[in-house]
Parts: sequence; C-alpha cells; structure tokens
Amino acid sequence: MPQGLQPGQKLARGVARHMRALGYATLEEFVPERGLRVDVIALGPKGDIWIVECKSSRVDFQTDSKWQGYLDWCDRFFWAVDLEFPTELLPPETGLIIADAYDAELIRMPGEDKLAPARRKKLVHKFATDAARRLHSLRDPRPGKDGVFLSDTIEVTQTQS
Amino acid sequence: MPQGLQPGQKLARGVARHMRALGYATLEEFVPERGLRVDVIALGPKGDIWIVECKSSRVDFQTDSKWQGYLDWCDRFFWAVDLEFPTELLPPETGLIIADAYDAELIRMPGEDKLAPARRKKLVHKFATDAARRLHSLRDPRPGKDGVFLSDTIEVTQTQS
Repeated sequence: MPQGLQPGQKLARGVARHMRALGYATLEEFVPERGLRVDVIALGPKGDIWIVECKSSRVDFQTDSKWQGYLDWCDRFFWAVDLEFPTELLPPETGLIIADAYDAELIRMPGEDKLAPARRKKLVHKFATDAARRLHSLRDPRPGKDGVFLSDTIEVTQTQS
Repeated sequence: MPQGLQPGQKLARGVARHMRALGYATLEEFVPERGLRVDVIALGPKGDIWIVECKSSRVDFQTDSKWQGYLDWCDRFFWAVDLEFPTELLPPETGLIIADAYDAELIRMPGEDKLAPARRKKLVHKFATDAARRLHSLRDPRPGKDGVFLSDTIEVTQTQS
C-alpha cells in the first residue's frame, strides 16, 4: 500500500491506472479555475476531457457542495468510490467508477456534454502547462520552492552557493 | 553538477530553467512526429511553441542533418550553445541562446513563423499527453515498463504478487 496517501488519493491512484489503460493521460488535483480543484482530470486521445471525483465515504460525498461546478469543465463527469460506498446516493446521470488503490473499473458511462471549443482549448493548454511544470519541478526542483527531491540537486545547490 | 547528463542535456537543463523564468513550460526530448526528436520544446502562456536544439560542439552541429525539419513544428526556432561555441556557424535567421547547466540567456530572438491552427492544436495535445504520462510514470511506475523509482511502489509490487 502506498504510504501517506489519503483514502481519496488511493482511489485517484487506481483511477489514474485505469485511465492510462484506456489511453487517457491524467493529472491529479487539477485546478480548472480559481476555487475549483478536481481530483482527477483525464485527457483522451481525441482531446476529450473527463473529470473524476473520488469519494471515500458517504460523508465525503454529502459534504461536497462544489461538484456541480465541475460539470462545466468536462465532457463527461464521473464519481470514483470503493466497493463499500452506497452508490444509490449518486445522481444516476453521472458516471460511476469503482476503484481501489490498485485499479478501477468503469461501471456506468455518463452522457456527454461537450465543452465549447474555446474552453477545451484553454483547458488542454492549462493541462499541458501544469503537467510539464510539475514534471520539471521533480526533474530539477528549485530549492525553497519545489522542495528538493533528488540528491543531484542538493549537490548542485551546494556547488552554486 | 548533475551526474550522468550528456553535454547537450546539461545545456537543456539550463535552457529549461530560463524558459521557466520566462513563463514557458518545457519538455525535453519531445517527438513531434516519428523520426524527429527535439531537445527542448517550450509552450508559452498564449500557446506559442518554441523549439530549442542544444549543441555542445561544432561537430555536434555540423552532423545534424535534421534541424530544418524542426522549423515546421514551432513558431520560433533557437539554438542553445555554450560560451565556447563558434556561433558564427549558426544561420543568422535562427534564434540564439547561450546556456550552461545552471541557466541560459536569450541572445537573439528569431522571427516568428506561425504554426497553422490544426498543427498547433495537435502539438499542444501531444505535449499535454506526453507530460502527464511522464509524470504519471514517475508518480506510479509500472514495474517492468517504467522502471521502479519509488520505494512505495516496490512495496506495492511485493504486496500484489
């Protein structure tokens, strides 16, 4: 079991693995606009955008007052929950994924509500920028900004100072 | 000094740092189409795309028979070289960046040759997908495919088998 992940993050891990198998590239904790943060955003081979919200418990779902705001930022919207979750709580028009930390399965495909082209373009651009920046931060962390993950970098920092 | 990097990769590291400071997100070793691999691709805040080829020596430049093929995949094209490089060899209409492993400086801004919208869209989509997949491979490597980078994952693999 991956250490230090919250229950929702474990679901997100399984979801991301399944999405990868479906040919979708994913980012976790993506911010489509200020004040909104989605658990998983997935970009498909044809530019289609899915959002998956991971709910680890009934309370986690019932205290989420923001999810309807996510519908405007994707072509399809899904919930990801574990096997224990009372799925009858979830709106029937939304997608359903059953997940654990290791994998997931798409149970119910929701209808598609296509993004306007300008918004899709903006989202794909932000997805690209965020993904590349996160990758860059891991590859070459800025001391004091990204944290230091790689021993190489510690050495570089020492050499420079 | 980062260990194990080739001279060209050290230049790419400095270039990526400078691009980040300019607000561009970068990916290294990006493949715009089969048979072409660019050293650094940079995506700007307005969707503009730059390509930077890193040349560590005169020979490295003179044996590159592919660079003109890169012009079709960006709005602006640059060379990145170190201070020792004989820059008079480089075509004057191309961009020039002086770099080392730690930073870079943009010396000559080339003219812009704008990508067609369909090609830009395709490139940004591939940039997004590649960046997210690389990030995912680091975050959650698939044993035997991505290699194993994180001790968490070793544990997961052992638990699953």
